Amino acid sequence: MNLLEICFSPELVHLHDLRGKAVVVVDIFRATSTMVTALANGVRSIRPVEDLETCRALGHAGYLTAGERNGQKTEGFHLGNSPLSYLNRAFEGQRVAMTTTNGTVAIERSKTDADEVLIGAFLNLQATASYLIELKKPVLILCAGWKGKFNLEDSLYAGALASLLRFPYDCDGTLAMEALYQHVQDDLSGFLKKASHAKRLQNYEIEADIDFCLTLNKYPLVAKLIGEEIGIKKTLTAN
Amino acid sequence: MNLLEICFSPELVHLHDLRGKAVVVVDIFRATSTMVTALANGVRSIRPVEDLETCRALGHAGYLTAGERNGQKTEGFHLGNSPLSYLNRAFEGQRVAMTTTNGTVAIERSKTDADEVLIGAFLNLQATASYLIELKKPVLILCAGWKGKFNLEDSLYAGALASLLRFPYDCDGTLAMEALYQHVQDDLSGFLKKASHAKRLQNYEIEADIDFCLTLNKYPLVAKLIGEEIGIKKTLTAN
Repeated sequence: MNLLEICFSPELVHLHDLRGKAVVVVDIFRATSTMVTALANGVRSIRPVEDLETCRALGHAGYLTAGERNGQKTEGFHLGNSPLSYLNRAFEGQRVAMTTTNGTVAIERSKTDADEVLIGAFLNLQATASYLIELKKPVLILCAGWKGKFNLEDSLYAGALASLLRFPYDCDGTLAMEALYQHVQDDLSGFLKKASHAKRLQNYEIEADIDFCLTLNKYPLVAKLIGEEIGIKKTLTAN
Repeated sequence: MNLLEICFSPELVHLHDLRGKAVVVVDIFRATSTMVTALANGVRSIRPVEDLETCRALGHAGYLTAGERNGQKTEGFHLGNSPLSYLNRAFEGQRVAMTTTNGTVAIERSKTDADEVLIGAFLNLQATASYLIELKKPVLILCAGWKGKFNLEDSLYAGALASLLRFPYDCDGTLAMEALYQHVQDDLSGFLKKASHAKRLQNYEIEADIDFCLTLNKYPLVAKLIGEEIGIKKTLTAN
């Protein structure tokens, strides 16, 4: 029985069969952490788009535009990719079009074939796990990675989710990351701050973002792609 | 300073710049373990080839043919992919043409650009590490993986080699695998036997191969691709 797989990069997703599966896309620094935070703070929905031009066009259609490339805010957009911008219900009721270096690409690559696409972050880890346990579908955790390569924070999130799910699996990536997560979980933040991406973000002087993105279970919500937009999934039966 | 990277799959090798680097190709179960064992037992050289047809043609030119697909010996070949076949200097002085599911593909993909290509296995771990420390070139460890996916045994070998090299790096894969290797090294064999590939091999009733491939430092030799063939690298100055 193989009910759980981890894919470490969108560049490897073609090796997996997504049909019938719940795909959890994760981009801890910072796309999916930001999406979860935005939804928890009353943003109506988030439309992930791959390129800057589509994002800009949606801006003309009434969306707030949010985006970064290589960790830097995009010129002319309303927002960058910091989850902190959405706190205090700053953009309640609004719709956001968001594009990021890695995260939105991973969503695009999974939405055609998967049964459903969820948005995972440490911020809503337990809620996502509880939902998946109830859902009883095979799960693929798709790490956004960094420009196609393995990254530590997304992979360790995958290990954390695997630890909670306790699904039977036959996937070496899951075996490795579950063991590594269990080994470092008592100092998750200390270990993850060694990650290359965290180090890059430190250079951009946004260390507060890192600490925030590594907060466990701050938001008890499930974020799900419905049509073209990500919203809060209320219950298993409602859409 | 980034002197060490791990690439978890040949499908991701295009993301790395191999120029100026020593690439260590690893396919623990069983291609690179078998190559190291063959050389240690007097085989003159090993020619890795991607396809069965080329291998067969070299058979007509005087090579011993060795190959497997999906862990099973290829019909009509002299040898499969078991390192045990080469013990007791059974094929001393002979040349072997070898093709395997994952290992020879990884070698092919690296030989054009890399400065040199080494063949790594737990069997010659320390010798390879000592050589690389003396060589002082940046290192990429290229895991053969399993049909394009991450696999545990190759990745943990990479973590083991990283632990010995102690090169500075900025690579999340290395960070993850060095930490995981240090965590499980006291029961490496027990942990690796949970790996999906080890489980597959157990089904083929070749558990003795697994134990053999997980033996540390049995052979103090460095295996290197020279032209089209893999041989023993005697010293840093000799070819």
